[in-house]
Amino acid sequence: MKDLLNLITPEEALYLLKSNFNVSLKAAEIELSQAFGKILAKPVEAQENLPPFSRSTVDGYAVFAEDTFGATETFPVLLKLRGEIGMGEVPEFTLGPGEAVRIFTGGALPEGTDSVVMVEHTEQFDEETIAVMRPVAPGENVIAAGEDFKEGEVVLEKGTRIRAQELGVLAALGYGRVTVYKPLKVGIISTGDELVPVETKLKPGQIRDTNAYLLVGRILDLGMQPVYFGIVPDKFEELMKAIKAALSETDIVLLSGGTSMGVKDMVVDAINSLGTPGVLFHGLAIKPGKPTIGGGINGKPILGLPGHPASALMVFERIGVPFLSYLSGLKSSYEPRVKATLTINLPSKTGQEDLYRVMLTQKEQNYLAMPLLGKSGLINTLTRADGYVIVPLDLEGLHAGEEVEVILF
Amino acid sequence: MKDLLNLITPEEALYLLKSNFNVSLKAAEIELSQAFGKILAKPVEAQENLPPFSRSTVDGYAVFAEDTFGATETFPVLLKLRGEIGMGEVPEFTLGPGEAVRIFTGGALPEGTDSVVMVEHTEQFDEETIAVMRPVAPGENVIAAGEDFKEGEVVLEKGTRIRAQELGVLAALGYGRVTVYKPLKVGIISTGDELVPVETKLKPGQIRDTNAYLLVGRILDLGMQPVYFGIVPDKFEELMKAIKAALSETDIVLLSGGTSMGVKDMVVDAINSLGTPGVLFHGLAIKPGKPTIGGGINGKPILGLPGHPASALMVFERIGVPFLSYLSGLKSSYEPRVKATLTINLPSKTGQEDLYRVMLTQKEQNYLAMPLLGKSGLINTLTRADGYVIVPLDLEGLHAGEEVEVILF
Repeated sequence: MKDLLNLITPEEALYLLKSNFNVSLKAAEIELSQAFGKILAKPVEAQENLPPFSRSTVDGYAVFAEDTFGATETFPVLLKLRGEIGMGEVPEFTLGPGEAVRIFTGGALPEGTDSVVMVEHTEQFDEETIAVMRPVAPGENVIAAGEDFKEGEVVLEKGTRIRAQELGVLAALGYGRVTVYKPLKVGIISTGDELVPVETKLKPGQIRDTNAYLLVGRILDLGMQPVYFGIVPDKFEELMKAIKAALSETDIVLLSGGTSMGVKDMVVDAINSLGTPGVLFHGLAIKPGKPTIGGGINGKPILGLPGHPASALMVFERIGVPFLSYLSGLKSSYEPRVKATLTINLPSKTGQEDLYRVMLTQKEQNYLAMPLLGKSGLINTLTRADGYVIVPLDLEGLHAGEEVEVILF
Repeated sequence: MKDLLNLITPEEALYLLKSNFNVSLKAAEIELSQAFGKILAKPVEAQENLPPFSRSTVDGYAVFAEDTFGATETFPVLLKLRGEIGMGEVPEFTLGPGEAVRIFTGGALPEGTDSVVMVEHTEQFDEETIAVMRPVAPGENVIAAGEDFKEGEVVLEKGTRIRAQELGVLAALGYGRVTVYKPLKVGIISTGDELVPVETKLKPGQIRDTNAYLLVGRILDLGMQPVYFGIVPDKFEELMKAIKAALSETDIVLLSGGTSMGVKDMVVDAINSLGTPGVLFHGLAIKPGKPTIGGGINGKPILGLPGHPASALMVFERIGVPFLSYLSGLKSSYEPRVKATLTINLPSKTGQEDLYRVMLTQKEQNYLAMPLLGKSGLINTLTRADGYVIVPLDLEGLHAGEEVEVILF
């Protein structure tokens, strides 16, 4: 078996990929109701002041604040009541000094008023007069015109992922349609003579195609579109045909498997023979994931992941997630991380990143990170993992009792 | 305005809701490829031993471990080579003492062998003989039959959400179809005379229906199905009609708004007049979110959320997410939390939970949680929040510099 030479670090691999391939996604204008999870392809500005008019935040009386200065329960200030502003009504009159108007939460303040006295701090003196028992400051209980958003202000940047909160803000700003990137199309090819479809009864030496489903799930979770190109046996011509088909229909191709003897070279040869730049790296200084291949053809990247599901998943997390997020136009990808106390020693070689999947448990105020060890090739640990811990390149390991950062799945 | 009496705690509210309403979702068998994000309605067992046959994890020679004991580079053990087991081949012969067979990663071990010597630790002596230069232990470089999953073992429990990892394991176990709960259908009604559709040019006192989009986003994020029933003005008959329509089509109804005078009572009256149990609570000891209403009609729950988007969101996070997760059949809902250092003092009343939205920033090895303060009713803080902090019922506040748990959005 040929040795894997020239191992590069995950950061170097990401740099190589990002500097060779770019976002080339088309943008499309879609209904706001369809935009959840999508990525903004243009910055969003406020099209108007929001609120467009000064608005009360309480039920009470709109007043000119100065009129209320000095008001107390014993010596209330009396103001002339000029009626009521109904919800959605335009106040078409101007208040003079010593006057007040009844207003409800959300109501628009008439000219001549700058604040609202809460109804609890007033009493009806007679039909035309209210008694104010507490002073208000100018602007109190009011959201001024443009205080929430100013016309022309950039509210959401290009590359923002639209969560529920962004949907709400876009609705408030009056955007019934938004321009977003089309989701990244990710081709998935599983290679290996030993692979069989899911519902097959296994013969010796066969395993069911697990990686395709694992990758489909992760890609859906990232809001992207997986396209599965099936199982390809370890034959050069069939591999070439599958890669070509996937490249023509998708933005990036994920290959996995081909761990049996000599097959890694076949993947390398196929990528190199199809175009430029071909293979950019073959061999990563991470464990698991050493035999990873990165490269691409005519502007479309290809990642070759290991065949073992647990290894394929870890390489996908470490390299695939940040690279795919970058290609999808996402401004910044946010990985939730929690701090936890390591329960056992984790050995590592210096010059190699070791990735350990862990299970989190709560102990009093803290989390414990329990590494899920076991023979490589076992997959029963997959579903118990909450996240993973990285032992950095320059360390010989981490010690039991150390605080570590767990990157959540 | 009628005072809100009998405030109950969020935990009491959740208890009341859970003890009055149950999961009543139908299960359906679907294709595995469609199952991402769904919840298992039945436990999943291994249908067979996995792997079904003992399997090599390396390229090398299958041997009987005892034959290799004592082997060194200077004094290798010589074994008779009985040929090769191709990938996917059934080994139909039995090895005797002193014999070895060539095997590849994933290959099935023949009878009479219990371990695999890596090819790197051997040399070809002659055509029929290999020299083993290191001993192996029984089971070394082998995954035994059933070592990953034992036939009949429960691998995934009922109520498990299917992530990528679960998809992979289900594929490995041969499940091309799985039985999952139908996604919870959540009805959304926005109430208030001041509300207008998203693309409307605002008149004074009007605001665009922001909560509907906010809630649609959160419900999609939870893997559930939102159904929007539009904007209902503050008229009793129209409110009744909308609630009836939503109840007939969905599993739970979320109402939001109706914050102007007297309207809260209208929602209470509507819920009480439509059936039992009617309103279970009206008023929560949380801020924001005090005027929340909880109840239901004939087995279907209704939650009445505040009208302010930021308040509606916080109540949805605190009460809605755990309750909807419970109704959806989820075994345990997992809220990612990170520890962070609070940047300013946060005041709170004892006997009341205060929820503060915060922005997270990294400072050296730690996160800082910066509360997003501002007038209630402003929504520009929504998109900057990464999560929120709870000041518990029994505390008068939290201090700047304290370590807090941030529940991530």
